[in-house]
Amino acid sequence: MKMRPFDSSYAQLATAMFEHVRWLSQDGPGVTRPSYSDIETETLAYLAQQAAAEGIETSHDLAGNLWMTVVGSDPSLPRVIAGSHVDSVPQGGNFDGLAGVIAALLCGIRMRRDGVVPTRSFTALALRGEESAWFGKPYLGSAALLGLLSEQDLARKHRDTGYPLNFHMREAGADPRKLIRGEPLIDLGTVAAFLELHIEQGPVLENSGHAVGVVTSIRGNFRHPGIQCIGTTGHSGAVPKEMRQDAVFAVVELLSQVETMWEQWLAQGHDLVVTSGVLQTNAATHAPSVIPGEVTFSLEARSESDDTLRSFREAAVAASRAIGERRGVRFEFDPPVFSAPAMMNAGIVELLMSICDSGKLRHMPLSSGAGHDAAVFSNVGIPSAMLFVRNQHGSHNPQEDMQIEDFMAGTAVLYEASFAVS
Amino acid sequence: MKMRPFDSSYAQLATAMFEHVRWLSQDGPGVTRPSYSDIETETLAYLAQQAAAEGIETSHDLAGNLWMTVVGSDPSLPRVIAGSHVDSVPQGGNFDGLAGVIAALLCGIRMRRDGVVPTRSFTALALRGEESAWFGKPYLGSAALLGLLSEQDLARKHRDTGYPLNFHMREAGADPRKLIRGEPLIDLGTVAAFLELHIEQGPVLENSGHAVGVVTSIRGNFRHPGIQCIGTTGHSGAVPKEMRQDAVFAVVELLSQVETMWEQWLAQGHDLVVTSGVLQTNAATHAPSVIPGEVTFSLEARSESDDTLRSFREAAVAASRAIGERRGVRFEFDPPVFSAPAMMNAGIVELLMSICDSGKLRHMPLSSGAGHDAAVFSNVGIPSAMLFVRNQHGSHNPQEDMQIEDFMAGTAVLYEASFAVS
Repeated sequence: MKMRPFDSSYAQLATAMFEHVRWLSQDGPGVTRPSYSDIETETLAYLAQQAAAEGIETSHDLAGNLWMTVVGSDPSLPRVIAGSHVDSVPQGGNFDGLAGVIAALLCGIRMRRDGVVPTRSFTALALRGEESAWFGKPYLGSAALLGLLSEQDLARKHRDTGYPLNFHMREAGADPRKLIRGEPLIDLGTVAAFLELHIEQGPVLENSGHAVGVVTSIRGNFRHPGIQCIGTTGHSGAVPKEMRQDAVFAVVELLSQVETMWEQWLAQGHDLVVTSGVLQTNAATHAPSVIPGEVTFSLEARSESDDTLRSFREAAVAASRAIGERRGVRFEFDPPVFSAPAMMNAGIVELLMSICDSGKLRHMPLSSGAGHDAAVFSNVGIPSAMLFVRNQHGSHNPQEDMQIEDFMAGTAVLYEASFAVS
Repeated sequence: MKMRPFDSSYAQLATAMFEHVRWLSQDGPGVTRPSYSDIETETLAYLAQQAAAEGIETSHDLAGNLWMTVVGSDPSLPRVIAGSHVDSVPQGGNFDGLAGVIAALLCGIRMRRDGVVPTRSFTALALRGEESAWFGKPYLGSAALLGLLSEQDLARKHRDTGYPLNFHMREAGADPRKLIRGEPLIDLGTVAAFLELHIEQGPVLENSGHAVGVVTSIRGNFRHPGIQCIGTTGHSGAVPKEMRQDAVFAVVELLSQVETMWEQWLAQGHDLVVTSGVLQTNAATHAPSVIPGEVTFSLEARSESDDTLRSFREAAVAASRAIGERRGVRFEFDPPVFSAPAMMNAGIVELLMSICDSGKLRHMPLSSGAGHDAAVFSNVGIPSAMLFVRNQHGSHNPQEDMQIEDFMAGTAVLYEASFAVS
């Protein structure tokens, strides 16, 4: 198989579809497509209309996801699914998620326009509800499809409306009563592979001059949204150093040790990133001349390795105990939220790289630090893989800026892979 | 001179006066006596009435402070002033400031009741506006008395009303137009000494079992209320360590270095306390899974030595530059606010200690970490000294808990000193 570029009419079509969906969801300089919202539903309806106009079969599963299928010459074979999500974070960028859906749809459209019938059926899947911003949990559409949502998940409240997920699902045409049985909505044996194209959300491809990246794994993570450190407030002038229980200097020592451990673990070859994105003294009592008695901070780590995550978390907790004892402060860890790492299918990773090579497309392997629907498919045993497309200015912000040439190159790789998955 | 204790009627009188003023200014579990407020004025009126009833002369200076004077046998000699402030922080304790005013008034009352006429005139001075909580600047009453307020100071806004200090001064019966000439309201040559009794605001006397402390110096300080560290936000999963410009880890490294320097400087014999009481990621953009791009934090240091303060500040700024360069972040220091340290008069310090010895009163020398009106008097050249009284649970909170026995012991020391200052 040799990579065959899409002609320029597809770039025009892609641009038109991106612009139409942007117009549907415009919100200031960015876009807002909430999970299981009317805007998400309208986006799916638009895509379904585009697919149907090209003779592609469309249907919805009970979780409200849109299936756009080119039936293969041997429909009894497990199908290839390509896709991603259509929702966005509040005032996010237009390409995060949507790029993978439009790429998959373009593959289907090209099959139809070229009169090419793949052996296996090919589905462009437009998923709902991937962004955790709306209900506090990511991958809602794929998790619902694969039977992984709990009743507690369906009761999660929307950040703005306050209504539960099952209410919004029903409004969006899904059937939440069918989702709590803990069984997938499809027979997993009917899926040969899940392929997801997505913009890279970091600067690695841009900085290294690669148009695309082949994802080898999707990092898992643990997250403590709000760890507390409790010390004792006091007059900053009147309490000598040895009598202080200063919560800021205690947290500073802990985070300093955490960063040092992070460096050591990287040097030992572990895959790891660590972030304390939220750090706050108590605004009700703090002042420049008051010894701080309370600090709240988040701690998150991401790694390809579940072992690394668990060991690193334990090391951080142990460090906090030693510091707390020595300084007379108390660290209170809130319950951690874990997301499991996922390995991409080695055979498909190799396939994607050889397709890139055949097209002389500069590419590199890389690990995805962000979570993606592909992790959910992979963790239920479906061979899964991802292709990253170079993107400027990061993601989850209106400045994300994927170039259409890079997008079309990635789409061409996806197109060849749709036929080549065995 | 030998210390002569006050009889128990004075402890009863003191308790009655404390309770009356508490009743005037009760605010939940604590008291609130704002600087240059009606409550402060009512407190002064009550004290003036108590003094007048004992035959003590009362008057107000143009800054609205209350003078309660026992005229000496040689009124041409420079007088001894004892006193402190009557205002409090919001929902503070009843003793911070007020103890020193009531102690001085009790000395005057005892002179009158015992028919003792001191050689030098003795003034119990009740100052206004010492707490910086209200107008962002401390020592307003003493600074106004000593000609140190600027027009900018008089225009400072009240934290709650938003009206300027000169408005509130006029409402309180002061004459702000007379305060901007930059000249003291009194001839400094007419003051032999300023003596201030005050509760200790830290735990040193309590922990070491001393009823009183003799203050040797009042620490100065520098304060940066809001230093900014500017990095770059990013997706916490998608940006590798070496590409991050993480503002939290940069501030953590700076504060960790600051604490290490603090320990080293203490070991070298410097007097120093360091506090970062306010530390905040930007609540508009922060999240556990976002690399923090902005942190605001305060930095304050206090020392007896102006040199120590200036050198420590320079060392902290230099450390921030090196860290900023290495990490690709920018530290922006807001303008520092300096308060000069003040040495207490060595002769009066010795006198206070020998009075304590004569009464077999457990005492110790100590440095005041908090600022006091005595620093303002000392820094214009008036021989000044302070006596700390043991106090439980710190200050600037409703739990402060000075015992009346300790207070009366301190008042007895003050009484002897009133006669013995030469």
